[in-house]
Amino acid sequence: MNYAVIWYIISWVIRVEALFMLLPGMVGLIFGERSGLIFFPLAAVFYVLGYLLGRKKPDRTRFYAREGFVVVSLSWLVLSAVGAVPFVVSGTIPHPIDALFEIVSGFTTTGASILNDVEAMPKAYLFWRSFSHWLGGMGILVFVLVLMPIAGGQSIHLIRAESTGPQVGKLLPRMQRTAKSLYLMYFVLSIVQFILLLCFKMPAFDALCDVFGTAGTGGFGVRGDSMAGYSAAVQNITTVFMLVFGINFNFFFYLANLRFRAAFGIEEVRWYFVIYILACAGIFLNLKFVGGESAPDLHHIAFQVSSVMTSTGYSTVDFDKWPEFAKTILVGIMFTGACAGSTGGGIKVARFVLYVKQFKVKAASLLHPRSVSVVKMDGQRVDSEVLHTANTFFFIYSAIFAVSMFILSWDNMDFTTNFTAVAATLNNIGPGLAGVGPARNFAEYSYLSKIVMIFDMLAGRLEIFPMLVLMAPATWKRNG
Amino acid sequence: MNYAVIWYIISWVIRVEALFMLLPGMVGLIFGERSGLIFFPLAAVFYVLGYLLGRKKPDRTRFYAREGFVVVSLSWLVLSAVGAVPFVVSGTIPHPIDALFEIVSGFTTTGASILNDVEAMPKAYLFWRSFSHWLGGMGILVFVLVLMPIAGGQSIHLIRAESTGPQVGKLLPRMQRTAKSLYLMYFVLSIVQFILLLCFKMPAFDALCDVFGTAGTGGFGVRGDSMAGYSAAVQNITTVFMLVFGINFNFFFYLANLRFRAAFGIEEVRWYFVIYILACAGIFLNLKFVGGESAPDLHHIAFQVSSVMTSTGYSTVDFDKWPEFAKTILVGIMFTGACAGSTGGGIKVARFVLYVKQFKVKAASLLHPRSVSVVKMDGQRVDSEVLHTANTFFFIYSAIFAVSMFILSWDNMDFTTNFTAVAATLNNIGPGLAGVGPARNFAEYSYLSKIVMIFDMLAGRLEIFPMLVLMAPATWKRNG
Repeated sequence: MNYAVIWYIISWVIRVEALFMLLPGMVGLIFGERSGLIFFPLAAVFYVLGYLLGRKKPDRTRFYAREGFVVVSLSWLVLSAVGAVPFVVSGTIPHPIDALFEIVSGFTTTGASILNDVEAMPKAYLFWRSFSHWLGGMGILVFVLVLMPIAGGQSIHLIRAESTGPQVGKLLPRMQRTAKSLYLMYFVLSIVQFILLLCFKMPAFDALCDVFGTAGTGGFGVRGDSMAGYSAAVQNITTVFMLVFGINFNFFFYLANLRFRAAFGIEEVRWYFVIYILACAGIFLNLKFVGGESAPDLHHIAFQVSSVMTSTGYSTVDFDKWPEFAKTILVGIMFTGACAGSTGGGIKVARFVLYVKQFKVKAASLLHPRSVSVVKMDGQRVDSEVLHTANTFFFIYSAIFAVSMFILSWDNMDFTTNFTAVAATLNNIGPGLAGVGPARNFAEYSYLSKIVMIFDMLAGRLEIFPMLVLMAPATWKRNG
Repeated sequence: MNYAVIWYIISWVIRVEALFMLLPGMVGLIFGERSGLIFFPLAAVFYVLGYLLGRKKPDRTRFYAREGFVVVSLSWLVLSAVGAVPFVVSGTIPHPIDALFEIVSGFTTTGASILNDVEAMPKAYLFWRSFSHWLGGMGILVFVLVLMPIAGGQSIHLIRAESTGPQVGKLLPRMQRTAKSLYLMYFVLSIVQFILLLCFKMPAFDALCDVFGTAGTGGFGVRGDSMAGYSAAVQNITTVFMLVFGINFNFFFYLANLRFRAAFGIEEVRWYFVIYILACAGIFLNLKFVGGESAPDLHHIAFQVSSVMTSTGYSTVDFDKWPEFAKTILVGIMFTGACAGSTGGGIKVARFVLYVKQFKVKAASLLHPRSVSVVKMDGQRVDSEVLHTANTFFFIYSAIFAVSMFILSWDNMDFTTNFTAVAATLNNIGPGLAGVGPARNFAEYSYLSKIVMIFDMLAGRLEIFPMLVLMAPATWKRNG
């Protein structure tokens, strides 16, 4: 293992994060909050620390898949640990584990909070946690690789480990060039949403945080009632942009290149919209016929489905009060999640498409034992290695889910609360149902359970394998 | 598709079931229950019906995998439909769907009931539903093939489709000879348990029904409080025999041949006991430290874990009142279930062992991309086709679980009730938690939900693929 290069990259992560800390400091200045000024000295301290740690440039800069996984997961741990410090030092979130939970929830774009009173938090800190969504959504290592002097060919390992979903498309070979275009789009779309929100008279600070939460599909709000208090126009804009940021970015890449047929030919994107529409329709019918609403409010339904399916987690209504079918649909789309190659969480629509296709192939072979068929996606044969990885993903995902449930249940909260708490953190959603519903928060869980959920959020964001490699004893064996 | 042979086998299923109906008729005679005598004319009617349907012996008796699946699933449907008739005709369970639910729950060895007052049911009917466990546990087609004049080489398709778990062992080539030994053991073990229960002064009728429920891992009781009212000795005997019937029968096959090393070398069996002990220990600690019991009663814990893990579903305590960790463990072992090649339900320990091993191979290849490793079980390489089937099993299992949850949730019961109702029927357990806990029953669900759970019980018992083949349009295409 090339420890020198791991150490070096981590030092740069700290330096870059220190620079980003200047932004909440400036928010503190603008709003005249004394507590927000702490970000300046902290930024200086961490910058110097990062500088000192990274003084020695590594002799060999080559690294392999194993180092790639270790660097990504360690980077995210360090990023989170450093990001939690302002909360603890300022006393805004005194307990280190609570602070870590909150900022991990930020960087992993989960949006699950332990805050009982969001509005009591100074704006600099609200900005910091919302901004962490935006950084986490696109992946922090991208920034680091741009600034760090030793990028080179290996950086693809890092970008791959940070991006979401199974990679089956043809964009892969041109990935590095593509990555830049994708991040440019992320930037442009964020700005468009910000301008639109300002047009509809959302306060600038709220709009900025809304954009961070939407683009990163995070979901931290700056108000106690999340998005319920804003105008319908603001809510609808957010609905649309949440949906947009949950789409596979290849779609926009094709659109930008005027390849409309390719864009609308992405199977995952089509299924994404089919699931979205079915979920909205199901909830509408349930509210009407079981919930007793003669005309359920479609704009709230559209918002809530968009929010949960893309793993954002904003709310305009307390959906925990909806009838059971509607709630079960929301739980269901927590798992499907958004598209691969988006900022969204969950298992990803693409993986489900692969599972269904594998099943179809299996069913065909049961009926006609001598038939040979392969799994195809977007017209291309899917490599068996990709399938194998997607399958083991599902097993290990289920195992982590079960183990997390066991540990959380020791706190003696009810089954629905525990189940949706794990679903909401492992899929990077934010709120769940019952005790962790949109009107409640995660504060009541024990610190042990919070540590488990911190792991789940990181495992969910990094799609499990990097975190497991980090924890595997074999990774740390000498000459291993 | 060879319709003639399908039709012929079905006719024999009806005839064999008609013969078995004489037994509850005799129970009715013994206990002087007039309502129980209905079984005699019904037996006559169905025997004649079966005889008429099967008059024409098929010219070609060959059939393939597709016919095998169709025969097995159709047989189970017909078996259930015929088995429900006595309840409806006698008025003991007036609604056909309720009656079908109850008898499907019997044949599939689930043990979920819609009866609000078990003890009000005449003994002949209690016998019939308990006896259906015993028949369903070993598979009805075995009986049919013994009696039917055209068995031949194809019967292996049927026995395979009826037996449980992924088949990875070496016993496969000798399967037909082995099958006979296995069923002999089933018979012998049942008799041993019956004698032991009589020794400890359990009433003969109760003991017989207890044996049927234990051997088939079914769980229908003849008392309102399930097994709570019997002596500790009777409960402990049941604990042990539930565990025994949940073991891979190859284990006993090896034991009977004095091949102890082979018996104790079966990896699945070892894991089965590890899971059992861990579950008991976890529940003990939870009852002690969270439940506030200074010395939790180990014999109830041992009973309950044995009952749920083997998918039997008897209860000696209302485990729905246990603290949450204990309940979550019970839900967890509903999914792992018993061993492959036993009468038990669930996903089966063997499949989980395969999932874990595949993950280990994947993890190794992540760390050392050029390493090549294969999945081995009991010292033998597992064929990739077996792995592929086990994997698609998990996906389609999850899909059926989710769709069932959606439909049940329309009835507006709570999430925990719906989740455990599906878990308890798809895994053939019996009781779940909350609204379907051991002190409650499934009567409150709508008929639509009951039909879904009838499907789930059958899909669970036949391990999904036969039911799906039956429903696939491609199966019924001409020249397909």
